[in-house]
Amino acid sequence: MAKAAKVSPFAPERLPDMPPVPGVRLAACAAGIRYQGRADLMTAVLEEGTTVAGVLTRSKTCSAPVLWCREGLKQGRARVLVVNSGNANAFTGKKGSEAARITAEAAARAQGCSPGEVFISSTGVIGEPLDAAKFAHLLDGLIKSAQADAWAPAARAIMTTDTFPKLATRRVRIGTTDVVINGFAKGAGMIAPDLATMLVYIFTDAAVTPSVLQTLLAAGADKTFNCITVDSDTSTSDTVLLFATGAAVARGAPPIADTASAHGQRFAAALHELMHELALMVVKDGEGLSKFVTIEVSGAESDGAARRIGFAIANSPLVKTAFAGSDPNWGRVVMAVGKSGEAADRDRLSITYGGVQVAKDGDRAAGYDEKVIAKYMQGREIAIGVDLGLGTGKATVWTCDLTHDYVAINADYRS
Amino acid sequence: MAKAAKVSPFAPERLPDMPPVPGVRLAACAAGIRYQGRADLMTAVLEEGTTVAGVLTRSKTCSAPVLWCREGLKQGRARVLVVNSGNANAFTGKKGSEAARITAEAAARAQGCSPGEVFISSTGVIGEPLDAAKFAHLLDGLIKSAQADAWAPAARAIMTTDTFPKLATRRVRIGTTDVVINGFAKGAGMIAPDLATMLVYIFTDAAVTPSVLQTLLAAGADKTFNCITVDSDTSTSDTVLLFATGAAVARGAPPIADTASAHGQRFAAALHELMHELALMVVKDGEGLSKFVTIEVSGAESDGAARRIGFAIANSPLVKTAFAGSDPNWGRVVMAVGKSGEAADRDRLSITYGGVQVAKDGDRAAGYDEKVIAKYMQGREIAIGVDLGLGTGKATVWTCDLTHDYVAINADYRS
Repeated sequence: MAKAAKVSPFAPERLPDMPPVPGVRLAACAAGIRYQGRADLMTAVLEEGTTVAGVLTRSKTCSAPVLWCREGLKQGRARVLVVNSGNANAFTGKKGSEAARITAEAAARAQGCSPGEVFISSTGVIGEPLDAAKFAHLLDGLIKSAQADAWAPAARAIMTTDTFPKLATRRVRIGTTDVVINGFAKGAGMIAPDLATMLVYIFTDAAVTPSVLQTLLAAGADKTFNCITVDSDTSTSDTVLLFATGAAVARGAPPIADTASAHGQRFAAALHELMHELALMVVKDGEGLSKFVTIEVSGAESDGAARRIGFAIANSPLVKTAFAGSDPNWGRVVMAVGKSGEAADRDRLSITYGGVQVAKDGDRAAGYDEKVIAKYMQGREIAIGVDLGLGTGKATVWTCDLTHDYVAINADYRS
Repeated sequence: MAKAAKVSPFAPERLPDMPPVPGVRLAACAAGIRYQGRADLMTAVLEEGTTVAGVLTRSKTCSAPVLWCREGLKQGRARVLVVNSGNANAFTGKKGSEAARITAEAAARAQGCSPGEVFISSTGVIGEPLDAAKFAHLLDGLIKSAQADAWAPAARAIMTTDTFPKLATRRVRIGTTDVVINGFAKGAGMIAPDLATMLVYIFTDAAVTPSVLQTLLAAGADKTFNCITVDSDTSTSDTVLLFATGAAVARGAPPIADTASAHGQRFAAALHELMHELALMVVKDGEGLSKFVTIEVSGAESDGAARRIGFAIANSPLVKTAFAGSDPNWGRVVMAVGKSGEAADRDRLSITYGGVQVAKDGDRAAGYDEKVIAKYMQGREIAIGVDLGLGTGKATVWTCDLTHDYVAINADYRS
């Protein structure tokens, strides 16, 4: 195993206070799947009637648990979530699907539900068989011992080389009561070194129909988790699941069955805020990072074009190493815009660093002073603005720099 | 300027003997454009009647010299090539186009030709004005002093952070005589740190019509320079120019006016070999590399799909750092196939390392022994085979690893 990485400079000083989400109980334990001396198995137990929505990796070599979740989402009902770290159960053939099925069946027996109401994720090394028999017998005890307040242990159990647990919470008024939205995530960590994977679980006691839940989750993910990048490598296991227990109905929160309703819009806004917070935490724990970077693209031909330009900049190794070196080398941003394949006109392109114009009208900005920008680049948070001057398309992308520590974390030998 | 990088482990022990190309003379000198104490300006003087073909960057923020060459290629006639290093003359607005025009006019006056017969390249920092007045007055002397044997000085003058000059030569029988094809290239080097740019110049004394020359060059580039990647960052300045002086006609080499003719095919084969050799030299001097990697993709839905899968693997930071760490972590290759967006079926995918099967039928290969692969990964040259099992599409992509030295070279401050 690799040595413990340095803790991210963006790690929060303390974890947020997570209120209970009525209808949700959690538990975690050390099953010894790969790591020693830490929790690596986690369950969330969900009240009957819980609806679920999900956004899953588009990878063509996705993991067995992703395939399992895809099936379960067709019903949109959930009673248990089981997540293990240490092994991704990806590229593990029929044995991998079998391991997912054994896990789901064990959880279903313990909870008294159908296997299709069990959702599963795995994160860790790819291509090694996952022996579900090693931990399936633990699920009964875990499910029975689950507690309403075990948010931090649950968030810790799904970490790989994350350097801090990622938790966020929101309250929103629905009808005559507040509903709670809690979420936690694991980020682009490698385990000595495996595949970076993002897993996000969000829970609410609001009652939301499966189709509305899916619409809200997909819309939110599009502007949050789908706008972050650490190293451009899409995982086989990326999974975002949102569970709604409906327990708040008893307290006077009317069910949300329409995204356009006032309830639906308020809930969507709070959900979006929470997803935004978790997404930024994932970037802020990007492997080896020293700087957090926001890239705002405007004036593109379309929002899609703006996003692709943003990612061309955010994923460029030359741009990312310039950030790491505090180098005000905005020529590399010009290069990345040019390679994106999207419409760009050199003579209309304008670039700002920290709000200061560095390039305008196809040339260095009048009065450009590299010393000012060099000083700005010393900071821990960098904001780049790129305006194409062509249309109204815009997008924001968040990323981090590419440092020696990234190479160290990922070039270490696995065993 | 950054400290001199370590010389690539793939640098040749000695440069090849470059025979003259009748109709071509070369010269280089130190103009002090950015570097001190080394040549940074180079010209090739071409006999009347020389035809030219070119392949230029598709970047939407391409440099002023690239725009100038694009115009010149419409005529397909060339008398002078002028290349400077130290400044890319990219994102320099109207002043940049002006600098290109001043350079071309000075060269045209010295040579007694039209500015449209002068081809120009610039490589180095982006976004800084290039003052052509600093070196335009040197062109007359350079052009008059050009020699038939100055290949190595010319190749050195266009280097940025390349650690060795890249030269190759071929002879091919056309009619009753041999014609010569000489070429040189600069690779993915940064100048403390500027933009990686690839420049390639190829010269032959064969007589080739502009349209045939263009067809042969484009076909060759598609299988050579367009199949290499160091860091996925497309330059604003990438330029490949091929000049044919026709001087061999006097010795009995018939003009080549048809790609399907026996002459055309022989010439194309030799040209392709030379381009292949230069392309591999560019990768073998990739910034900070310690390993050279060949990725052969087969069984894809189409050749284009195979190439995109090959590049998804070759450009993945996780795959590249695994190479740097001699890590037999083929799970990252599975991930990269999955993220390419091309059709893939986990259960048909097969992967080899050095010819040894590591993954087959959606699972670890039977008898897989990580020790064997770990030993293979210690080597300096790595060959990965990926078969999708879906169709007949195939492609080969060449790349290098992502090392600490890459980060060091590119995170250093520019000044």
